[in-house]
Amino acid sequence: MESYESLQDYLTALQKRTAMPAGFECSTVGIDFLPREKPAVKPYRMNVCLIAAERPTPLFGAMFTQNAFPGYPVIIGRERLKSSEIRALLINNRISNVRVPEGRDDADRLLESLAELLECPAEQLMPFSTGIIGWRLPVEDMEKSLGPLVDGLSSAVLLPVSRAIMTTDSYPKMRSIQLGEGRILGIAKGAGMIEPNMATMLVFLLTDLTVTRKFLREALKGCVESTFNRITVDGDQSTSDSVVMLSSGVKPPVDEEEFRKALMRICWKLSEDIVRNGEGTNHVMEVQVAGASDEEVATGAAKAIANSPLVKTAIFGNDPNVGRIINALGDYMGSLNRRFDPLDVSINLGGIDIFEAGFFTLDSEKEGALTKYLADCAQDTSELRFPRHDRNVEINVRIGDGKFESRVLGSDLSYGYIKENAEYRS
Amino acid sequence: MESYESLQDYLTALQKRTAMPAGFECSTVGIDFLPREKPAVKPYRMNVCLIAAERPTPLFGAMFTQNAFPGYPVIIGRERLKSSEIRALLINNRISNVRVPEGRDDADRLLESLAELLECPAEQLMPFSTGIIGWRLPVEDMEKSLGPLVDGLSSAVLLPVSRAIMTTDSYPKMRSIQLGEGRILGIAKGAGMIEPNMATMLVFLLTDLTVTRKFLREALKGCVESTFNRITVDGDQSTSDSVVMLSSGVKPPVDEEEFRKALMRICWKLSEDIVRNGEGTNHVMEVQVAGASDEEVATGAAKAIANSPLVKTAIFGNDPNVGRIINALGDYMGSLNRRFDPLDVSINLGGIDIFEAGFFTLDSEKEGALTKYLADCAQDTSELRFPRHDRNVEINVRIGDGKFESRVLGSDLSYGYIKENAEYRS
Repeated sequence: MESYESLQDYLTALQKRTAMPAGFECSTVGIDFLPREKPAVKPYRMNVCLIAAERPTPLFGAMFTQNAFPGYPVIIGRERLKSSEIRALLINNRISNVRVPEGRDDADRLLESLAELLECPAEQLMPFSTGIIGWRLPVEDMEKSLGPLVDGLSSAVLLPVSRAIMTTDSYPKMRSIQLGEGRILGIAKGAGMIEPNMATMLVFLLTDLTVTRKFLREALKGCVESTFNRITVDGDQSTSDSVVMLSSGVKPPVDEEEFRKALMRICWKLSEDIVRNGEGTNHVMEVQVAGASDEEVATGAAKAIANSPLVKTAIFGNDPNVGRIINALGDYMGSLNRRFDPLDVSINLGGIDIFEAGFFTLDSEKEGALTKYLADCAQDTSELRFPRHDRNVEINVRIGDGKFESRVLGSDLSYGYIKENAEYRS
Repeated sequence: MESYESLQDYLTALQKRTAMPAGFECSTVGIDFLPREKPAVKPYRMNVCLIAAERPTPLFGAMFTQNAFPGYPVIIGRERLKSSEIRALLINNRISNVRVPEGRDDADRLLESLAELLECPAEQLMPFSTGIIGWRLPVEDMEKSLGPLVDGLSSAVLLPVSRAIMTTDSYPKMRSIQLGEGRILGIAKGAGMIEPNMATMLVFLLTDLTVTRKFLREALKGCVESTFNRITVDGDQSTSDSVVMLSSGVKPPVDEEEFRKALMRICWKLSEDIVRNGEGTNHVMEVQVAGASDEEVATGAAKAIANSPLVKTAIFGNDPNVGRIINALGDYMGSLNRRFDPLDVSINLGGIDIFEAGFFTLDSEKEGALTKYLADCAQDTSELRFPRHDRNVEINVRIGDGKFESRVLGSDLSYGYIKENAEYRS
């Protein structure tokens, strides 16, 4: 991965490589507001963004959180899947619009005002909100931003939106691939609260390549399942996670398998970006579990390891306390209530065997090598680059002779994570 | 709860109140050793402890971890449940004896040597180990400690054992109740790695009251289920968790219900002690979920809230970011795949309604009161007392009209937790 000495250099490079697919425009506006729910010492800042197709398009799909308290944007987004066409996406950070009494009305009101400005039905608009749960949107301030948003629409680059949707993210996340005469471009917001089913993550995928709606939705589902649903920062699935994909359909189609592969690569790379940019992440863990009797067990075991606070803190400390991997795996396997033989298990950390056919094989030489390996995989804070390096702590686990495997990305647990989350709303 | 200005004052008071039940003896010995698996700069310290019944007793029971990689002491302990009598418990901290090739032989060798010294069959001895997973026990050094251990047996007090079994615990945990002509006394080791099914927790319960073996085992199971299996510090269930209870049977029996109630109280109080003394714990959370359609859902929902890193960090920061409670609950309920209506949910934090019949009811006055409440529930680090205060952060959740409820104890997530766990083996 290329990396740059300053965030500005990185952004310039991003901007150069990531031309907007044809047929789309975007804009962002920042507003200041006072929340109803907290005596504010200073106003809060919110960014409102608009991504619009130049013409309403029937080529769209979306996937949403499984959280039982979905935000109103998720509820509305699910309804919109039945719309015949989509014209634009309205996005805000800072407040997530979940279960406040006025939440549905607020979202509808904003969409209706926007529909008037864009001269389209509200059914062609999808809302997305991320941020604090439990507070009301500053709907009047937001409404005032809609005129400037529509006036500011530009087809130049999507970078301003990828910056504006950040909450605790430390840099914008964009990936794109040129394909045939067009391209696929993806941006993601998401740092903490990342887990199965795309927790507190917003992902916007745009393409100008012509696809059928049916294929677009199938491909999106498959890619999300094995990328965004395989990352975990803190095990919580949020109320507002959404992945949406739009095609303007203004470029000729390409081979469907090529499209799918490109989309998969963009989704996987955005997933890595999200974890690497997680709240206080110093190490990215890549846990691969093979030999499972089904895919659910493989993924469950990998997530159990990647989510264990004890594994995460040891890796943060560059301490190869590998017993904790066995502890986390054993906790999960023990909870399944099915036949399991420790003798079928082998584990390798960074290319070094630590547990073979049921037994630890540690010695003091390995201890030294493992400590060095973990230190090498850490962010080098003395040399801050953007985006950070792409080294992962690789944990490979075999749990039997089954045919199924799964790969999960996770982060360590650091002082930075605590700091970020203990003071999130300040 | 009484508290003392110095650890020494607290220990003196503990010692006074916690006379050993009749018919038991104990002793401890400290040893220094060099681990095979790590180039050691200085020797590691291990405590080896012995708790012995003066006469072998048929009145005993035990419960063990469900982790799929149980330590050899757990494997042997399960076999011992079939023994007709138990004479003594051999306990060590520092290394937990899990899945090392020599692990079973090492444990057997120690028990056989001890059996010779105590002049009883090895089948009357149960081993318990806690500490680093993946290292071999220093079996030769431990064997040399057995003679002094047996020679040092004394019936005075159990306090030295409750101190010697500590790992990251910051003070010893002992609770006792006088009952009829005898008493029940419990000690616990356990700090981090506490979750369902008693993770990395060792609990030793002694009584001199006569009970039947059948009743003893039933009562133990019931009490463990609703106390030690309802606490969580970091969601991992360890490889070595064990709770064991012995009766010397030298005092006349008491009413079985009274016995059960006293045992329950001791187990609950030890559970609170364990969480309050968890690694880096600044707040204890008490999450009560009511109105569930079955007990599993009530407990699952309560644990989902108590285990959420986002809830835990917010509470650590005295930040009433109560949206995260909804987020964690919604994540769990959404994973169940059963009918669930947000309108059935109400949540109260510290006596303040924050979510009523499906909607947040926050305002800036409540925000101030909640912030103050959380700060009041924190450990006061300026005034260090032993044991710490007993204020809990009370989160009360109603999820419907069902008849089932559950109460779970958990801890916040602090810088101290990270520090403890990133450097655990150093």
